[in-house]
Amino acid sequence: MSLDNASMTVYGDSISGNCLKVKFVADRLGIPYDWVETSVLARETRTADFLALNPAGQVPTVTWPDGRVLAQSNAIMLLLAEGSDLIPDDPFDRALMYQWLFWEQYSHETALAVLRFKKHYLKLADHEIDPGLPLRCDAVLGLMEGHLAPRRYFVGEKLSLADSALVAYTRFAHQAGLSLPTHVAAWVRRVEHELEIEHLN
Amino acid sequence: MSLDNASMTVYGDSISGNCLKVKFVADRLGIPYDWVETSVLARETRTADFLALNPAGQVPTVTWPDGRVLAQSNAIMLLLAEGSDLIPDDPFDRALMYQWLFWEQYSHETALAVLRFKKHYLKLADHEIDPGLPLRCDAVLGLMEGHLAPRRYFVGEKLSLADSALVAYTRFAHQAGLSLPTHVAAWVRRVEHELEIEHLN
Repeated sequence: MSLDNASMTVYGDSISGNCLKVKFVADRLGIPYDWVETSVLARETRTADFLALNPAGQVPTVTWPDGRVLAQSNAIMLLLAEGSDLIPDDPFDRALMYQWLFWEQYSHETALAVLRFKKHYLKLADHEIDPGLPLRCDAVLGLMEGHLAPRRYFVGEKLSLADSALVAYTRFAHQAGLSLPTHVAAWVRRVEHELEIEHLN
Repeated sequence: MSLDNASMTVYGDSISGNCLKVKFVADRLGIPYDWVETSVLARETRTADFLALNPAGQVPTVTWPDGRVLAQSNAIMLLLAEGSDLIPDDPFDRALMYQWLFWEQYSHETALAVLRFKKHYLKLADHEIDPGLPLRCDAVLGLMEGHLAPRRYFVGEKLSLADSALVAYTRFAHQAGLSLPTHVAAWVRRVEHELEIEHLN
């Protein structure tokens, strides 16, 4: 399979940071794709057709004309960015990038994306939200602030997939009712500028 | 940094599947390490000393004599296994391995490991556990069963880090009160045999 000459189809929801990660990286690297808008809220990821494509019922899911299917935003980014400057050459820096990608999915997305979804899309009032959730968001942002205070990027002092992944939901923090600490806010602007994506809020 | 001649220190909790992943892969590849038992239940991951090492307060955390620190079980496995037969050579198979590693942390560990912890360690009764949690475990095991029915391993018909990661908590499923479907049960035995790890239950 060549990524260059076989155009891929991205099943994605434009309000999902996870799906936008694929767009950010494909656009950055000039990889062509067709985007098939697939709404999580409208349960378009739960149809029989979609589950036949991805039994986990999650977007983004990417398909290629030869029948290959790949899910999980960070795995898709890793495939698209293979051999590019978004993946550090140094093995230990690359491992640190993986560390942040796993932390993003385990600790960051499950706090910031979930709080944003409950507040911005489900329109839940504060008393309807587990009080532990905003506290976890604060801890996540605090950890990012501590890491970024002496740094411009998450790994190796240059843009990598760690930044592309972490910026995806961090830039929506205002929709979760959260304020970004100083260094995190500056890093969001920096990464948005590098990836040529719009600043929100 | 050479992984061969600078012995690493693994801060790990022996009851944690995430920590055991590091042991499985290091043992398989003959990579020496010192294991520092670090109990999550005894809150040894919350001391000031530990948080200075890893602000996320999670095990496993690995350190090297030159001061480098790496967290996140799957990131540690990826570093240790670099260049070994546990990582597929084919870029798309490698991406599928990443897909399963991210799915493991996002959907599998957060179901099976959490239910096991609540039942086996916190000794909670069924009525004290969110009824959605065992349902998510059933869905996770069902997805694995569907994937494994026509396959012997998760990716590329040979053992990879996808299997090492997914077996870590799947082999503890009985401690979560779960029965393994046929193909998943056979796969657990196969992976345990290949990794030379004890069969439980």
